[in-house]
Amino acid sequence: MKMRNPPVNSLSLEFLTEMLISLEKLESDKAFHAIIITSDCPGIFSAGLDLTEMCGRDPTHYAEYWKAVQELWLRFYLSHLVVISAINGVSPAGGCLLALSSDYRVLADNPKYAIGLNETLLGIVAPFWFKDTLVNTVGHRVAERALQLGLLFPPAEALRVGVVDQVVPEDQVQSAAQSVLAQWLAVPGHARQLTKTLMRKPTADRLLKERDADIQNFVRFISRDAIQKALRAYLEKLKQKKS
Amino acid sequence: MKMRNPPVNSLSLEFLTEMLISLEKLESDKAFHAIIITSDCPGIFSAGLDLTEMCGRDPTHYAEYWKAVQELWLRFYLSHLVVISAINGVSPAGGCLLALSSDYRVLADNPKYAIGLNETLLGIVAPFWFKDTLVNTVGHRVAERALQLGLLFPPAEALRVGVVDQVVPEDQVQSAAQSVLAQWLAVPGHARQLTKTLMRKPTADRLLKERDADIQNFVRFISRDAIQKALRAYLEKLKQKKS
Amino acid sequence: MKMRNPPVNSLSLEFLTEMLISLEKLESDKAFHAIIITSDCPGIFSAGLDLTEMCGRDPTHYAEYWKAVQELWLRFYLSHLVVISAINGVSPAGGCLLALSSDYRVLADNPKYAIGLNETLLGIVAPFWFKDTLVNTVGHRVAERALQLGLLFPPAEALRVGVVDQVVPEDQVQSAAQSVLAQWLAVPGHARQLTKTLMRKPTADRLLKERDADIQNFVRFISRDAIQKALRAYLEKLKQKKS
Repeated sequence: MKMRNPPVNSLSLEFLTEMLISLEKLESDKAFHAIIITSDCPGIFSAGLDLTEMCGRDPTHYAEYWKAVQELWLRFYLSHLVVISAINGVSPAGGCLLALSSDYRVLADNPKYAIGLNETLLGIVAPFWFKDTLVNTVGHRVAERALQLGLLFPPAEALRVGVVDQVVPEDQVQSAAQSVLAQWLAVPGHARQLTKTLMRKPTADRLLKERDADIQNFVRFISRDAIQKALRAYLEKLKQKKS
Repeated sequence: MKMRNPPVNSLSLEFLTEMLISLEKLESDKAFHAIIITSDCPGIFSAGLDLTEMCGRDPTHYAEYWKAVQELWLRFYLSHLVVISAINGVSPAGGCLLALSSDYRVLADNPKYAIGLNETLLGIVAPFWFKDTLVNTVGHRVAERALQLGLLFPPAEALRVGVVDQVVPEDQVQSAAQSVLAQWLAVPGHARQLTKTLMRKPTADRLLKERDADIQNFVRFISRDAIQKALRAYLEKLKQKKS
Repeated sequence: MKMRNPPVNSLSLEFLTEMLISLEKLESDKAFHAIIITSDCPGIFSAGLDLTEMCGRDPTHYAEYWKAVQELWLRFYLSHLVVISAINGVSPAGGCLLALSSDYRVLADNPKYAIGLNETLLGIVAPFWFKDTLVNTVGHRVAERALQLGLLFPPAEALRVGVVDQVVPEDQVQSAAQSVLAQWLAVPGHARQLTKTLMRKPTADRLLKERDADIQNFVRFISRDAIQKALRAYLEKLKQKKS
């Protein structure tokens, strides 16, 4: 699954929907047992959530968008397929979440390819299920510090704290992901899937139990004047940077 | 406590029952404060659950067997005695669980002495309390990967991820376990026992709350044609290997 | 915030009350965003709870004292200020808890400056919220072993297992804490505070839900003859050591 939503693979509503449809197709095709997620945009795995979907729109749009973000996480986190991330670029916030939702993460060894949940730096707060996914990956203490400071980990550090499982030279990311995949596919599929569910369902259930409340929370938070102002300022800065 | 059920210390119903009776005796004797579990079978700590108890029997037998397995874990995991594992051989699946249930694990440095919960490789799934015990020992992420892949860790790796606490030359396993024991026995016993309960009771309570449901689950799962077939094939392979 | 309750910064009821008042003042002053906790007593960060408050008094006093200890933890653990510990001395038991309640821990590299929850060595048991705070910092397995054995970690070991975040030469503790502080203050304050709450509130809520029961537990436990005897013996030993 090569993500291609130039220039930065931001997770727009349209792109999220495409990814969900692709995943559903692969999952219902019994010939497929695994996917490797990687990026077709040079230097960027995914820039994460699309701020333009969260800025200057109406509450109905925010709710629809957030439901799609929840869906993406739920479907990838619980997918019965083996999901390997071949991370060939920077992956902040939602891009990091996507990687954390897979079963194994291979990161290209390029100092620019930082990865992390950096929401606080934009003045926003990662929702509890982003937090749960990070805690499940790196433990409570690393998550607490990383989330408060909005840390983006360069490859060596990401490996050390456990945000990724393997760091390889940039031209070997795809082949390393393929090797790992072979190991995962060698395990009897049914037992592996049940074990994945055993590990992850309690975390997913926490969101499923209060999915609507989580949407309402998001809509209320993102609609605040202060947050809208912060997002506009950030988007403005991004635009100026580009031109 | 030297385990002796040749050739591989498999945890048959009879052997489980013997172990439980021994433990109970030691626990009720106020002169005893600790046990070191080790194996009397060369090269094998314990091969784990006895597949012949889970294959070709009736549901009543499966239920009785599973109840004994639960009892073994509950009694060792919560024992007020200090329990040290001196692991002098390979310890897959139930053998690993036994080691994980003790307070400290010393492993002999022999590349053949791998340790791990490798259930998925046999096409079966570790129950939730095996999973909980592993998560409590190595954290969520290591457990998630190890359980899905059915990983058996060689000594260096087992030490690195925390499956064991110490790796020593093979001829020093018993003396190392004795040294560790001295440290544990130096702590005021009553405070240590209450602290152990504080740490472990919530995990044990999860099983105690749904012990019967867990037995029903096991019986239903193990009685499936596909599982019985997989177990028969595995046992057949073991037999051929021996002859 | 320089702690000064000579000779060992023990957390007497009076000193706890002073600390709480200071914290409250700083929190209500909008000009303040952070505090660094350090000690003004050479060689000791804090000796922890004051055993003289727990020995030879009446139940009402024990209850009042324990409520203040709870309050100290709740207020520091959830403070909206950034709290950095500059640990310039030994910090056993309650002294360690105070450090664990802050957002970041810098420890002076002096082999005498051990840190840990060593309650079992005095024959007492750390309450569940001490345990939760340690588990959140170092994970379940390290906490289980450290609490049962009452381990006090010297600097290198404390860093390795994660009890502290950084170890620096003794004369650089304050400047290192200042540098760290700058990093924490660079994050948008509101988002950082909400994220801290997201991480810590579930742990604090466990105490808040059964605060009275926890006080009753403490009073019952500490009033036991065996415990009072153990504390008197320990205090006697301390007195002889001094003279």
